[in-house]
Amino acid sequence: MTSREDCDRRDAQDALAAFRDEFVLPEGVVYLDGNSLGARPRAAAARAAQVVEEEWGQDLIGSWNTAGWWELPGRLGDRLAPLIGGAPGTTLVTDTTTGNLFKALAAALSIQAERAPGRRVIVSERDNFPTDLYVAAGLAELLGRGHELRLLDSPDALDAALADGPAVVTLSHVNYRTGALWDLADVTARVHAAGALVVWDLAHSVGALPIDLTGADADLAVGCTYKYLNGGPGSPAFLWVHPRHAGSGTSALPGWWGHARPFAMEPTFEPATGVARFLAGTQPVVSLALVECGLEIAARADLAAVRAKSLALGDLFLDLVEQRCGDHPLRLVTPREHDRRGSHLTLAHPDAYAVVQALIARGVVGDYREPDCMRFGLTPLYLRFVDVWDAVDVLADVLDSRAYAEPRFRERSTVT
Amino acid sequence: MTSREDCDRRDAQDALAAFRDEFVLPEGVVYLDGNSLGARPRAAAARAAQVVEEEWGQDLIGSWNTAGWWELPGRLGDRLAPLIGGAPGTTLVTDTTTGNLFKALAAALSIQAERAPGRRVIVSERDNFPTDLYVAAGLAELLGRGHELRLLDSPDALDAALADGPAVVTLSHVNYRTGALWDLADVTARVHAAGALVVWDLAHSVGALPIDLTGADADLAVGCTYKYLNGGPGSPAFLWVHPRHAGSGTSALPGWWGHARPFAMEPTFEPATGVARFLAGTQPVVSLALVECGLEIAARADLAAVRAKSLALGDLFLDLVEQRCGDHPLRLVTPREHDRRGSHLTLAHPDAYAVVQALIARGVVGDYREPDCMRFGLTPLYLRFVDVWDAVDVLADVLDSRAYAEPRFRERSTVT
Repeated sequence: MTSREDCDRRDAQDALAAFRDEFVLPEGVVYLDGNSLGARPRAAAARAAQVVEEEWGQDLIGSWNTAGWWELPGRLGDRLAPLIGGAPGTTLVTDTTTGNLFKALAAALSIQAERAPGRRVIVSERDNFPTDLYVAAGLAELLGRGHELRLLDSPDALDAALADGPAVVTLSHVNYRTGALWDLADVTARVHAAGALVVWDLAHSVGALPIDLTGADADLAVGCTYKYLNGGPGSPAFLWVHPRHAGSGTSALPGWWGHARPFAMEPTFEPATGVARFLAGTQPVVSLALVECGLEIAARADLAAVRAKSLALGDLFLDLVEQRCGDHPLRLVTPREHDRRGSHLTLAHPDAYAVVQALIARGVVGDYREPDCMRFGLTPLYLRFVDVWDAVDVLADVLDSRAYAEPRFRERSTVT
Repeated sequence: MTSREDCDRRDAQDALAAFRDEFVLPEGVVYLDGNSLGARPRAAAARAAQVVEEEWGQDLIGSWNTAGWWELPGRLGDRLAPLIGGAPGTTLVTDTTTGNLFKALAAALSIQAERAPGRRVIVSERDNFPTDLYVAAGLAELLGRGHELRLLDSPDALDAALADGPAVVTLSHVNYRTGALWDLADVTARVHAAGALVVWDLAHSVGALPIDLTGADADLAVGCTYKYLNGGPGSPAFLWVHPRHAGSGTSALPGWWGHARPFAMEPTFEPATGVARFLAGTQPVVSLALVECGLEIAARADLAAVRAKSLALGDLFLDLVEQRCGDHPLRLVTPREHDRRGSHLTLAHPDAYAVVQALIARGVVGDYREPDCMRFGLTPLYLRFVDVWDAVDVLADVLDSRAYAEPRFRERSTVT
């Protein structure tokens, strides 16, 4: 049985341990929800004050030039690119994941309309994050010329779907609910072999494990900066386009920021060269600027070490749950194999909602997802082995004592 | 000739004068660019610190409930609604103006597809803000079933365009470049009489003059919170939908926030009732929360008084320019009549770019727009009559002395 002292020893030897000091974490909390909202980088408070008080308050409109606001999407994109295996000039931090996925799918379909006009099907999986499915179905309906979204009921169904000659496959690299991981390079190769393009949603993997979009020869990708990249609540998302597509895809949400000559204010859209064509309108600068604080930390972390620690934290969590909670009706939803899981672990329990609330009341913050899932996010930059030990200790006590049976833990709040 | 002392006296009698203290303005600057980026409300610094340090830093994921992040788009929408004559539950603060215009136009076209399927033309004006045209043309191309954007070359051409039976008319209430104002109620009535729907872009009018969308019986509207509403750089935009359309328009950018049961995470989109269906994905919370500081000030200002002061400031500006700069090749681009202009004034000059740079160097901040336009925004909540006097005093000196002829004022920067 692993002891708390064993965990202390592992923390003392952890090469990533110093990163924890770069974040502010609430006292008395084990935060296992960084897969949903990353913790606050210490530097973000001063940066927010700088943007609000100096850049906005004092320099006002001049800050578009002097503070580099206009350059932020491309500059932050270049800072993010190494985390996803992107070359300079291929990545933007802009808009929401929803908006970027819409643009990426529309671009992919427009590329296919040129080279394989008969292909009009988008393939995704039924268990994908709902917005991804809504965006794909909505786009298919908008296009409405035989366009259609088809959903895989399981990963095994991908080859059969590819055999039908789809235009585009869009998948989440790590599943938001189950934590299951697709093999990005393998799937990309299979999709290409079938004549389709792939659009990856990296929301639940970027910053948590090494990603090499260029090496995998992927087509387009989107993702989120407020989970493992610690960009702040709802911070702007990113869009990556392989250079071979940067000059060809239609921007379905064209705006003046994406024009070849934005300040000429011409009535007809002429896309900028490269990924910049996917810029649309004026961005929420305060939220956007704060993304840099998280990226600055991520740039100094070795992603292979981050991944190794993530898996070690996960193994510890699962071992301790088996050792200490084995009598309870818990089921591991996440694949246990290292190469099939991301950086959060999902356990099913018949009273999952109430158990999560009881854990939160005891300072262990995970979250709940329908219908019976408890998610525990493992964020190697600010989580210690001893935190995992403490979390399972509380979980075991909550389950053994049936503390979760209290009526107050069953009341549903708006957001879970 | 109006003297500076006359202006001092008018300021002393100005019922809106106290609002200036609610903003932070840089020393030694006359800021005439609030039509592009509004000044910072004093309260915004503390609010930013609260959101970043407490809500994000300490309460983390819990803030979606405890700090009301989830409710922000609707709650801020309800705060904004009185400024545009909207009822509670009709307005959202969310996404960018680009994204909202896309959603509004797609919804309007989908409504027309039901009731007048032959109508597939969007009408706008060539001089509209470019993004509005790009979005409309992009949507028409995406739909691609005879859909088309037709542009008016002058306001007089509207009736002829209406006679051709368009589906939707989209116009900016106040033109970004010229400051010209459409009669919102009159145009809405004419559009409706021709069987079309109207989508208003209120970016350059909201907060600067009274607007009554419900009284005018308009269909949909979008606009910006970072100009006269002082929400912060690039702060999220708004979307208003008349209640008669709230249950019928397609959301072309569907996301989980707009689902009838967002936390059920269902694979098929079922729109929420009312305007909430037009929510898409997770919003940039820090930028979004700051919008409230500006709205809180606007809620206390009488918009009729704001409009009266805006026109008075404008009349003073134009009178002084005529009196003091009459020998220079200046041309008023904005209509002079009160009922035909918004809250910024545009003067053309052959050396407009350099003149604007010379003015900025002297602390008078306006901006330049192609091909020869100088824009001067009049923001009654923090601008004094004496500021207008000082601005024209500097303008006269810059023109008389030909200070703008210095080479440094001719170098183009990225953003102007």
